[in-house]
Amino acid sequence: MVTPAAAKTDIDLKLAGELAQQLRVDSVRSSTSAGSGHPTSSMSAADLLAVLVGRHLRYDWDEPASPANDHLIFSKGHASPLLYSVFKAVGVVSDDELMTGYRRFGSRLEGHPTPVLPWVDVATGSLGQGLPDAVGVALAGKYLDESPFRVWVLCGDSEMAEGSIWEALDKASHYKLSNLIAVVDVNRLGQRGPTELSWDLETYRRRASSFGARVFMIDGHDVAEIDRAMAQASQITGDQPTVILARTIKGRGFSEVEDREGWHGKPFPPEMAERAIIELGGQRDLIVRGPKPDQPPAAAPAGKAIAALKLPGYTVGDKVATRKAYGQALAALGARRDVVAMDGEVSNSTYADEFANKYPERYFEMYIAEQQLVAAAVGFSVRGYRPFASTFAAFLTRAYDFIRMAAISQASICLVGSHAGVEIGADGAFPVGGAKVLRASDADQVTLIGAGVTLHACLAAADQLKADGISARVIDVYTVKPIDTDTLTAAAAATGGRLVVAEDHHPEGGLGSAVVDALTGAGRADLTVRHLAVSELPGSGTSQELFDAARISAAHIAAAARSLAG
Amino acid sequence: MVTPAAAKTDIDLKLAGELAQQLRVDSVRSSTSAGSGHPTSSMSAADLLAVLVGRHLRYDWDEPASPANDHLIFSKGHASPLLYSVFKAVGVVSDDELMTGYRRFGSRLEGHPTPVLPWVDVATGSLGQGLPDAVGVALAGKYLDESPFRVWVLCGDSEMAEGSIWEALDKASHYKLSNLIAVVDVNRLGQRGPTELSWDLETYRRRASSFGARVFMIDGHDVAEIDRAMAQASQITGDQPTVILARTIKGRGFSEVEDREGWHGKPFPPEMAERAIIELGGQRDLIVRGPKPDQPPAAAPAGKAIAALKLPGYTVGDKVATRKAYGQALAALGARRDVVAMDGEVSNSTYADEFANKYPERYFEMYIAEQQLVAAAVGFSVRGYRPFASTFAAFLTRAYDFIRMAAISQASICLVGSHAGVEIGADGAFPVGGAKVLRASDADQVTLIGAGVTLHACLAAADQLKADGISARVIDVYTVKPIDTDTLTAAAAATGGRLVVAEDHHPEGGLGSAVVDALTGAGRADLTVRHLAVSELPGSGTSQELFDAARISAAHIAAAARSLAG
Repeated sequence: MVTPAAAKTDIDLKLAGELAQQLRVDSVRSSTSAGSGHPTSSMSAADLLAVLVGRHLRYDWDEPASPANDHLIFSKGHASPLLYSVFKAVGVVSDDELMTGYRRFGSRLEGHPTPVLPWVDVATGSLGQGLPDAVGVALAGKYLDESPFRVWVLCGDSEMAEGSIWEALDKASHYKLSNLIAVVDVNRLGQRGPTELSWDLETYRRRASSFGARVFMIDGHDVAEIDRAMAQASQITGDQPTVILARTIKGRGFSEVEDREGWHGKPFPPEMAERAIIELGGQRDLIVRGPKPDQPPAAAPAGKAIAALKLPGYTVGDKVATRKAYGQALAALGARRDVVAMDGEVSNSTYADEFANKYPERYFEMYIAEQQLVAAAVGFSVRGYRPFASTFAAFLTRAYDFIRMAAISQASICLVGSHAGVEIGADGAFPVGGAKVLRASDADQVTLIGAGVTLHACLAAADQLKADGISARVIDVYTVKPIDTDTLTAAAAATGGRLVVAEDHHPEGGLGSAVVDALTGAGRADLTVRHLAVSELPGSGTSQELFDAARISAAHIAAAARSLAG
Repeated sequence: MVTPAAAKTDIDLKLAGELAQQLRVDSVRSSTSAGSGHPTSSMSAADLLAVLVGRHLRYDWDEPASPANDHLIFSKGHASPLLYSVFKAVGVVSDDELMTGYRRFGSRLEGHPTPVLPWVDVATGSLGQGLPDAVGVALAGKYLDESPFRVWVLCGDSEMAEGSIWEALDKASHYKLSNLIAVVDVNRLGQRGPTELSWDLETYRRRASSFGARVFMIDGHDVAEIDRAMAQASQITGDQPTVILARTIKGRGFSEVEDREGWHGKPFPPEMAERAIIELGGQRDLIVRGPKPDQPPAAAPAGKAIAALKLPGYTVGDKVATRKAYGQALAALGARRDVVAMDGEVSNSTYADEFANKYPERYFEMYIAEQQLVAAAVGFSVRGYRPFASTFAAFLTRAYDFIRMAAISQASICLVGSHAGVEIGADGAFPVGGAKVLRASDADQVTLIGAGVTLHACLAAADQLKADGISARVIDVYTVKPIDTDTLTAAAAATGGRLVVAEDHHPEGGLGSAVVDALTGAGRADLTVRHLAVSELPGSGTSQELFDAARISAAHIAAAARSLAG
């Protein structure tokens, strides 16, 4: 760690140019030392970052947790050499760590940035995600924290082809996020060749403008032009997000690779790196810092104060749809002022509208844009909120890759998919884990396992079996992960390894798999399992017709149990 | 089936207005009879469909398989009452089937349209997918079939918030798809209330225009305006796709629900339906047909003739990366002129570029837009091609919901995700199913199961175990679905139920689950399983470091086997 005492602050444009060269040199050095990484994608954006970090990003590098800091999100996460070179330049990562840690096992300087670093908000690398995440952060800033921080996002030009970028700009303008500034590094070259729009900045401009952004078009290597655009962009006025389109050159500064195909994601061999460093003016070790936030770090925003909770209660025997109970519980949780909710235009079905009606100021309609829905949740979590994002379960899959990346971010978010068979029960304070034994006796001959709607079928099957003199244990495995292995092993032991598992899901990767995985993983497993699941393409019909057709109804469960017990 | 002999053809605008009312009445009748469905979403688009089907859609309803037919895709699949009412109006579905089949179990008139109907190309219902699918159909028409058919798509306004819509328009203009016409039913109301842009057609216009479309703005209830726009749109001139923005009223024609919130996805109760039918002028049974295709149905396009194949061969001991072998095999398959390929801007990594270099006319670059990548494959399959769509496996998950819908379409497409551990082997003509026993003897004490990269670890582990005097069977389970149950049960029986499964994947829903599911599903299973899988968040490092950290390396496999055999 370099002491920041020596840091130059609020640097002039000449020094910004020097800093840009340093960022290029360090991007080359770090990727060559690692033997992998994306130096050319970093070099194109070095001038942008030098001006931003040296003159416009209001960030207290000694207090990365300060709620007053601006945010800096690399949507083009593969430019991690540039980001880490910035961290060196501001004095929070040493040159030694940069050179020996980058992309190495166990290091925090991973191939793509993750929040294991205190200056990184979200994991990026899968393109088209950083900007949608930033929309969530900016929503929190504008509507909940009411803090003047800005959210700066570095986007690549290739990722402008992702629909999620347009979902993000659409929501940014819908919610008037004047605190959001996307800087697009239009270096013309993707992984395998030219991007779709190459240097056609005018088309980018028309698109971003039609989606509601205020747009600047600049030469991304002219520090004065960059500075003017960023100075204007950083004034939070009006009600539009800002997009700065910067025409840049991939590999800028090293003539052997400038604007050449075939150099994406390739470090320079050592002797080539030497030539690059010479051409870039040699190694530098500037320590520079830009402006600090205008206001001192505030205490936790008042909006996050937590009030006492009174959760809804139900009487045994009440029949309440799970989604209705969700809406009621969510509305009750709203007493905690850190709870926010959002939905994909189906809040009257998921019953997120119970929350929306009670706390409209903390409800954000994301319309039919599920990638942005999940990304907004991630963004809210960055600011310390507890986001609940809901839609139909099938449509959550639209955001699969966003959920994957949220996991890499280790973001704390709650995703709720309704209209699916496997869902958390509505029994109090949302405990995850465990299972419930609903029927048990010493004479049990077989175990019936269900979840959600199939649980009711298991209970009905147990009644039918009882009439035949067969005693069945019934278990509600309401949490698939973590699964309650103890309850399952006890039941398997008590019923001679005879199990029927019924699920309204395809046989692969669901309840049945989880049960047999748990039992075989627990030790020697002596099992006879009848696994009832949906194996053909379902169509329209009544619930009962579809249950029968899928062979997961009470009658099928009872028949399977009889074949085991008999 | 109504005989089409009585059909009126090339109807005038007055009759088109009558037809529109019939479509409304039948949408009301069918949804009320089913007790579910979306009548109001159908009524808003009835004039659009009446003019289209009666005057512009060139379609031989007696020959739905004719390659000369225009295509009609309902991207707003929930307007199925309207689509099925069209099918009645052209005489291919009887009134009786419409009234007794819609949304009933076992009927082909499912809640959302699927290709079980010969006039439906793709399953829709999950919004934002029909237009991307249509881009694939239009690509096939323009570049491969070189046929003058047009692809008409009915979009909802809510789905314009999906990023995939903009991926589709972007590709439609990039590929100059003047044969693609999207008609957007801007009825202002989504499921739970107003859409994001309500009736702001000007913003829609600027967006669609900036994405390269020729745009018409019309009153969607003025048959003359509709007719003029469609007449112009159906001339395949220029190099732009067309977007017709139609301002409409949800529930149009029934004053009790027109433009009212709270009526999305709700059939009218019977007495209300009666009032609606009266206000709409009563039941009609017009049979109308529009123009037929200009040219007689052609034979299968020359482009699909199949040449002899010569697949690449490898010598035992050759080490060829699976993805390299994929590229080589794909290039060889290119001799079949029905094979087309597309990739998400990583063809130099997936080696789809081997095909692109050899058959550039049948390779389509989809850039970084994975939803459109999969949708294009679906669209090509509609025209009888064999599409291969590739990208990194992790990024295919971006298109999860498109893959799900492709399955509902039962589309025949090949999706190839590279840089994942589980992938089809490169041993000849791509057989799916089966497993390979690579090491076996009568003295085997334990079975080691791997796939992809972990297979090599299993083989190395078997060598280590041999040195300890432990004989291990090794199985390459290169196909997870369908899994080779016979080979697994034989191995389990031969090795006393002692299995080690190693996978470079999380423990849930992968190879290990598939193996234990297969064994427990096959009958009484007496198993002791050590399941080695990735259970923590991986980071950067070398392959070997990551294998060791995840505890799925040869040493870990050998240790697990020793603990079972000892």
